[in-house]
Amino acid sequence: MKKSIGAKTIVYPTPVFIVGTYDKAGKANAMAVAWGGISCSDPPCVSISTREATYTQGNLINQEAFTINIPSEKYVKEADHFGVISGRDEDKFSITGLTPVKSEIVNAPYIKEFPLILECKLVDTTKLGLHTHFTGEILDVKIDEEFTDENGNPDINKIKPILYDPAGMGYYGIGKFLGQGFSIGRNI
Amino acid sequence: MKKSIGAKTIVYPTPVFIVGTYDKAGKANAMAVAWGGISCSDPPCVSISTREATYTQGNLINQEAFTINIPSEKYVKEADHFGVISGRDEDKFSITGLTPVKSEIVNAPYIKEFPLILECKLVDTTKLGLHTHFTGEILDVKIDEEFTDENGNPDINKIKPILYDPAGMGYYGIGKFLGQGFSIGRNI
Repeated sequence: MKKSIGAKTIVYPTPVFIVGTYDKAGKANAMAVAWGGISCSDPPCVSISTREATYTQGNLINQEAFTINIPSEKYVKEADHFGVISGRDEDKFSITGLTPVKSEIVNAPYIKEFPLILECKLVDTTKLGLHTHFTGEILDVKIDEEFTDENGNPDINKIKPILYDPAGMGYYGIGKFLGQGFSIGRNI
Repeated sequence: MKKSIGAKTIVYPTPVFIVGTYDKAGKANAMAVAWGGISCSDPPCVSISTREATYTQGNLINQEAFTINIPSEKYVKEADHFGVISGRDEDKFSITGLTPVKSEIVNAPYIKEFPLILECKLVDTTKLGLHTHFTGEILDVKIDEEFTDENGNPDINKIKPILYDPAGMGYYGIGKFLGQGFSIGRNI
């Protein structure tokens, strides 16, 4: 018997996207975002939501560009830091020791040390309430070779991404393989 | 040194949302969706993307209502089945043996056997390309008591949700706890 726990923002899993932007002076900033996900296959798009109060939101609107950076488990502290302090108040790259790299195709920085990054141009903006929802077309995905399989595809077991639990506010790693998509349930 | 792998829809993790809708005849359908995520904290909203070809998309537009159902690991085969076959061609609830329950607050069915469900009314529709992006306001969240902690909050370790790897097309469980959000990175 299901019980109501009220209208809450609880789903599993939510991602840990680190969103890279430049401010008007060209200073690189990055912010942790758990509200977002892939939103279209063709053209490939990813959507994220931010609050107006964030430094990232103004940067994103001004530059019409952002990156999504996927952290490995070993960077969970840095990822959390990107969600705690505003880029208005400190240089997050300097504090975390991570390296912003200017994208060659959009005016946004990506994080050199993170295994997988997406370069995006803003294509849609929808104000939903406290958060505004931004959709970016994914113009390219880049990965370090050590995180790919023998065919050059991203390997989740090498990337070791992080997920976030919005109910318990905890970070978790990836667990055991449960089965192959479009396959294990086909002949149920 | 990062290498380009092209414009692909690869982020980690993506969710396994089972979206519940009714068709015009009142038949319950459910579909697996990995493109989506929470999109606003206030009002609480969740966004999902579907293709026009799906039975779910027509249902969702007609009813202006849907549910998001979070499967436990033990239902990974059923979850996959919901993504393989169209509800036009079969009664997915009958085939999987799962039970649709009519929501009391929106005109959509939720899945009795899944631990956590969200009841949503459609508030925004944005056509992005192959996929259309639908945002629902979360009117309520319901959970079975056995999946909550001592304070009545959802417990990720009891829910055992599934995540999807869009590069390798595999399903995975939740891994080890890595740290507490808004905490472990504060004083980096």
